[in-house]
Amino acid sequence: MRPREAQPNLLVVVADVGDEVAVGPLLAELGEAIRTLTAGTDARLLGLPPGDLTITVGVGPRLVRLAGPSLPGTTDLPEFDRERISPAARGGDLLLQVCAGDAVVPSVAAAALLDQAGDRIRERWRQAGRRGSTVAVNQDLTAPRNVFGFLDGIVGPHTTAQQRRDLWLAGPPPVAGGTIAVLRRMELDLRRFATLSVSDQEAVFGRRRDTGAPLSGGTIASDPDLSAKTPDGRYLIPADAHLRRAHPATVGVGLMLRRSYSIDEPAPGLLFISFQNDIRTFTNTLTRMDDGDALLSFTTTTASATFLILPGFDQLPLGATMFD
Amino acid sequence: MRPREAQPNLLVVVADVGDEVAVGPLLAELGEAIRTLTAGTDARLLGLPPGDLTITVGVGPRLVRLAGPSLPGTTDLPEFDRERISPAARGGDLLLQVCAGDAVVPSVAAAALLDQAGDRIRERWRQAGRRGSTVAVNQDLTAPRNVFGFLDGIVGPHTTAQQRRDLWLAGPPPVAGGTIAVLRRMELDLRRFATLSVSDQEAVFGRRRDTGAPLSGGTIASDPDLSAKTPDGRYLIPADAHLRRAHPATVGVGLMLRRSYSIDEPAPGLLFISFQNDIRTFTNTLTRMDDGDALLSFTTTTASATFLILPGFDQLPLGATMFD
Repeated sequence: MRPREAQPNLLVVVADVGDEVAVGPLLAELGEAIRTLTAGTDARLLGLPPGDLTITVGVGPRLVRLAGPSLPGTTDLPEFDRERISPAARGGDLLLQVCAGDAVVPSVAAAALLDQAGDRIRERWRQAGRRGSTVAVNQDLTAPRNVFGFLDGIVGPHTTAQQRRDLWLAGPPPVAGGTIAVLRRMELDLRRFATLSVSDQEAVFGRRRDTGAPLSGGTIASDPDLSAKTPDGRYLIPADAHLRRAHPATVGVGLMLRRSYSIDEPAPGLLFISFQNDIRTFTNTLTRMDDGDALLSFTTTTASATFLILPGFDQLPLGATMFD
Repeated sequence: MRPREAQPNLLVVVADVGDEVAVGPLLAELGEAIRTLTAGTDARLLGLPPGDLTITVGVGPRLVRLAGPSLPGTTDLPEFDRERISPAARGGDLLLQVCAGDAVVPSVAAAALLDQAGDRIRERWRQAGRRGSTVAVNQDLTAPRNVFGFLDGIVGPHTTAQQRRDLWLAGPPPVAGGTIAVLRRMELDLRRFATLSVSDQEAVFGRRRDTGAPLSGGTIASDPDLSAKTPDGRYLIPADAHLRRAHPATVGVGLMLRRSYSIDEPAPGLLFISFQNDIRTFTNTLTRMDDGDALLSFTTTTASATFLILPGFDQLPLGATMFD
């Protein structure tokens, strides 16, 4: 199984589920609505062609713990540095991630899902995002340009073997083929970043701004050489460059699939979204970044949540057997 | 002069200007920043190609009154029905409307303008918007689909003669070639609208949902026939249809150029933007709509503002002579 190529338009809704709500039937109903929405047979689409509409549903740690304390996805995200997160924007029971090529379809599809759930859920926050213009990394992968002008999401589990190892959850149903999502909404300090020279900006990321090539050389598709040095002994990819600090080889974790989207509100920034089959891939990476990643000083995180992403479904209801 | 075709991505920032600020120099600096941003020579673009980046600057009624009580644009918008507007989202001194084909350029260009203005201005609210997929009305005009699935902005001053009559301000500098903008952010009740049958939805708008043709017949490009009736004497375009209520012939005003954008946050809806050379074109139309437009019951307006749009500039500084 391969993840679908990211669509240009995203809407994320994070909600809580009421204490008395039967979660299994709620998920089954959402699954049925997803089926009719993506098939284009749901009147709530108001005649809009769904196109490549893709809806991903996640269940927050509180609900996963209720379903089974030994399931993956029971762990809340800890607090990290450089956070300014209101209580409403930390955690949550339910993730609805709606992506499409069309610019208005995500809003309309999300409204249909919220209509389906009715007063069983309570919206906490929502965030729209867009992928900037993209550059091809290889024939299967494109990287979008973020509001810092840099290309994003280049390193990741892009081969089937890597995805089996680091992306998809193994084990028995109901989680086999699912994954763990981390969402972090960040404001980015464009004003201060723009005062840097281009080469200083590139030193922050560890890549060329125009091409996305690592500072160790090659093309955007080249593996960064973290040991490469200048003739006078300095690292080509600086010690505090994001590419080095966040690299799986530096952190000692598996690969995360990063599917971040640029945002305009409440301030210019990024909705960072990563998928991995072990939340420690994310938490260990960010802990390592907190300890000296040059990029972090330009970020303020304003929302944070993790979810168990339910496997795609063809026959079974969404979340089948998990909340029996 | 023809207005440029609308770009798919928009970011609007509404700000106040400090009491002690010299407005003329501020506008001149913003104009110079607009010149370097649109030329792609501004380092604050972070290497992003500006493409069709277009920046429109407007001055709110308070500042226009300071510049000259006889200028157009001195009139604040009154309150209307179905408003839920916080004090911060009503009015404002300065409009920065940033549009581009690229999804991240508006945020980056707006950040550069805010950087230029520094603490001379204070942001009140911002709103990102997107044009849905479009349908060609004629060779010069496309209409985007909104979150109700209907096509928007079909009737308007689309000929040069109509634009001279109803869109552009006449008279001496500094306003000749400018216009008056009205911005209204609206939440739309998708949930209730989706419970209507398609024909009931079409009766609300007065147009076919799929093609945009008026219910009096023809194509999307056809003039609506407001007097056309069924054999049993009912209007083809119902008495409370939006197309009839808001039609210039019904209201007795000129044409307004509507350039609305769909929004995802804080709720699905519309950032209505209209341009006209007389604010009464808007206020008389909305007064008439308040008195029985079927569409209005699905709307809640959450932001409202009007601005004198400064003429495009090639040689003169932006706003030249207005605040001397």
